[in-house]
Amino acid sequence: MLTSTTSESQSVDDAANDVLLPLYQRLAAHYSAAIELGSLKPGERMPSVRELMARHDISLSTALQVLRFLEAQGCLEARPRVGYFVCATKAGDIPLTSEPDLSQPLSPGAHAHFVGINEHISLLLERGRQAEVYMDIGGCTPPASLFDHHYLNKTVTRLLREHPTLLSQGRSLLANQGNHPLFQQAMARRALASGIRVAPADVLATTGNSEAVSLALAAVASPGDMVAVESPTYYGLLQVVESLQLKTLEIPCSPRTGMSIEALELAFQTQPRLKAVVVVPDLQMPVGARMPDENKARLVALCAAHGAALIEDDSYGLFVEGLPVKPLKAWDSVSGHVIYCQAFNKSLAPGLRQGWMNGGQWHGRIQMLKFAQSRNTQTLGQLVVAEVLGSPTHQRSLEKLRQQLKRQREAMARLVARHFPLGTRMSLPSGGLCLWLEFPAQLSTSDLFTAALAGGIRIAPGSMFSNSGRYEHCMRLACTHPVDELMERAMQDLGAMACRQLGQNPRS
Amino acid sequence: MLTSTTSESQSVDDAANDVLLPLYQRLAAHYSAAIELGSLKPGERMPSVRELMARHDISLSTALQVLRFLEAQGCLEARPRVGYFVCATKAGDIPLTSEPDLSQPLSPGAHAHFVGINEHISLLLERGRQAEVYMDIGGCTPPASLFDHHYLNKTVTRLLREHPTLLSQGRSLLANQGNHPLFQQAMARRALASGIRVAPADVLATTGNSEAVSLALAAVASPGDMVAVESPTYYGLLQVVESLQLKTLEIPCSPRTGMSIEALELAFQTQPRLKAVVVVPDLQMPVGARMPDENKARLVALCAAHGAALIEDDSYGLFVEGLPVKPLKAWDSVSGHVIYCQAFNKSLAPGLRQGWMNGGQWHGRIQMLKFAQSRNTQTLGQLVVAEVLGSPTHQRSLEKLRQQLKRQREAMARLVARHFPLGTRMSLPSGGLCLWLEFPAQLSTSDLFTAALAGGIRIAPGSMFSNSGRYEHCMRLACTHPVDELMERAMQDLGAMACRQLGQNPRS
Repeated sequence: MLTSTTSESQSVDDAANDVLLPLYQRLAAHYSAAIELGSLKPGERMPSVRELMARHDISLSTALQVLRFLEAQGCLEARPRVGYFVCATKAGDIPLTSEPDLSQPLSPGAHAHFVGINEHISLLLERGRQAEVYMDIGGCTPPASLFDHHYLNKTVTRLLREHPTLLSQGRSLLANQGNHPLFQQAMARRALASGIRVAPADVLATTGNSEAVSLALAAVASPGDMVAVESPTYYGLLQVVESLQLKTLEIPCSPRTGMSIEALELAFQTQPRLKAVVVVPDLQMPVGARMPDENKARLVALCAAHGAALIEDDSYGLFVEGLPVKPLKAWDSVSGHVIYCQAFNKSLAPGLRQGWMNGGQWHGRIQMLKFAQSRNTQTLGQLVVAEVLGSPTHQRSLEKLRQQLKRQREAMARLVARHFPLGTRMSLPSGGLCLWLEFPAQLSTSDLFTAALAGGIRIAPGSMFSNSGRYEHCMRLACTHPVDELMERAMQDLGAMACRQLGQNPRS
Repeated sequence: MLTSTTSESQSVDDAANDVLLPLYQRLAAHYSAAIELGSLKPGERMPSVRELMARHDISLSTALQVLRFLEAQGCLEARPRVGYFVCATKAGDIPLTSEPDLSQPLSPGAHAHFVGINEHISLLLERGRQAEVYMDIGGCTPPASLFDHHYLNKTVTRLLREHPTLLSQGRSLLANQGNHPLFQQAMARRALASGIRVAPADVLATTGNSEAVSLALAAVASPGDMVAVESPTYYGLLQVVESLQLKTLEIPCSPRTGMSIEALELAFQTQPRLKAVVVVPDLQMPVGARMPDENKARLVALCAAHGAALIEDDSYGLFVEGLPVKPLKAWDSVSGHVIYCQAFNKSLAPGLRQGWMNGGQWHGRIQMLKFAQSRNTQTLGQLVVAEVLGSPTHQRSLEKLRQQLKRQREAMARLVARHFPLGTRMSLPSGGLCLWLEFPAQLSTSDLFTAALAGGIRIAPGSMFSNSGRYEHCMRLACTHPVDELMERAMQDLGAMACRQLGQNPRS
């Protein structure tokens, strides 16, 4: 059962207090908090339109909006001519995903095989691309509507006015490596705020994070070497590893605390060609784990002791509320074996594909590879990020985005609880863009992917997130879209398909 | 001696006819044509300011501009209180670079070695970066002043107005691979105009050309395999090859007709691991060769016969005047073994870093690698290129850029003839961004690089353009900067340094 009721209700109160939201959403948040806390119990009748109008001094249309919004989020169900009732299901009814065996790397049969994940993923992506869908809950990039595009565009226009030759200016290859000093300074300043000391000159601009991780791996490992990754992991990483002719070793990842240090330790003892470890320490993709500081310190020390590179993707830490998270790199004070990567695709401007990295002791080699393989990174993107990132406007946007994602995660969790098969388990991450679902073992999400596509819904099946085949009954559920009636329909359809596969009756 | 007098004078007439140029430049072009044709002979007196004013009905300041411009270009020299005189040297006095032995690949001692060119080049670039210089004739990107930045910026602003969420729109990874349909259509249309049939769906957007060539090589060759390249070649290519742990085999390149087909044929017979050939068929970088159609057809057939990939960089073909050049890909009608790459960095907007490729039979694998290594290419750059490329405004800009580059190449050639050591030889390409110089064999351009840097001038020494060590007495001379008094000073200084190294007296 749900263990985090307090933080859940806390979050709902936050939403209710968010004066930036429309009135009906604030009221809806108030009532969904009451439902979470049990003040309004499943099956109970919700105050009527008339009562809401009187109680909150609101118009008829606002009262209706409140009820419809709560209905769309799965908190209420309408009984025609009777009224709205609190739903029997809420996120808390869904058990947490199971804790894997953290004591050892995944069994030898499942590891280090060169199973053509690239081809598997490419085929899935291609099939997804060919299909006409009305809802995409596979991809995890927030839609454009969640970003402040006016501010972004104004910034671009202003930058072009201030630097009229920005686009026609090539950076002399002999004069620099295409890293704009303003961008370098801005990133170094940010890094310092999270406890990392990086000289501005050691900031390397990259095209998103895939390029960064790809360069890092190319710099530290040779074909045939082994790379430890979290299991499950972001499929893009599996593609990078395979495209560099490296082998993956999957290390179990707790949905709460992330990569198992014990299993990694064992891996180092048995795998001499284990040269690098890739980790998303905060809001791991896809399970949403956050590594406790103690584990971070142990992980950094363990990799140092075995002379392995520790490659850190800190792009999702931006979605953690409160103080900046402390990245692994902050513990790397002596040996420089942590390679830090961060991208702003998901948090600032998906269309810009701007990121940066610091390669620690391999920085020179990484710079060389970057320069050989793709030369300079575009200057415009660097300047936009440097300008926008520190601005109060962006801070407010990011906070709004976090709150919106939290509401969407909660609403999606309720829809899962309401429509998905009995026996489904689910992660409950403290932030981020998705939920990780575990269906009863006999369900195949590869089959569900096919059925869903035929029904106009695109999902990301578990087989994309591992070489081991052990997540066939799992899927990643994007929470990036606002939860509206269309989403409710999609979730209801998907839940019914999953129930049918398991021989259960649809839940609703 | 100069063999191309007709085309030279033709070109000057073209400039004189270019109504877009300021009056003084048109008059200067008229006189430099007269000098080239011999109507005004070396040592003869140039009409005086007063004569020019009367003859062309121009103002004093215009007449002075004409004379100073011709002086800066090396056509005239001023004798104080006497007047201007036609210089004794002009480009035609410099012999063409020598034709290499085209019968075989470079000697076994020089080929296929893994000599750390990346490190060598990185060190040179780093030394160049550290130095304060007043003139960079090493890098070959045209300065921002040669591009129409108003038009570019207006296009960006308009695109952001028409597509307000361009920067905040992520492309769903499941929905496509980040290639914008408008960009794909525009490229496919262009390709058709040069004789290539590519379906829009088979256009892959890339970040510049290094990424394209890097992806192509990664798709067709494995570590330890061999890649044939032109000798000399663009140093970036040597870096890509080395960073992928491949080996280079240098094939002699005629300054007139490009890569030697005979030598390549011999290479295929002796090198079983030769998997790919990389060629710049038009305006080869750095020697400026243009491969005749007959050679193109033979090259395509030869690679097909040996099952090798032929990777073509067609970025410089844009600088050829007249009809579109016919790329190698146009001869690849059956086997799809030609991989076509084109970038617009140097011709449209150096700051955008936009390019595209079609991978022929390896297109699927290249797409997969691209997606794994750097995901989508930014959409903004794709749309800007798609919009700008076909516009009459850009056609005019590109034509102006070509004319300007031609004048600059001619002016730089005159400065070489005037200031550089006796015995210097030089390429005379029919277009493009640079000249290739061959000094007498005992001169070391590595030493010249060091001396020039100390004197505030950055050059690109011959050792950057080969693994073979055979271009130590050569250098690439960028012709991308307008030739002004500062340039004349730089060329005079550099010439004097080179003369000193050879024990010659400075020429001027």
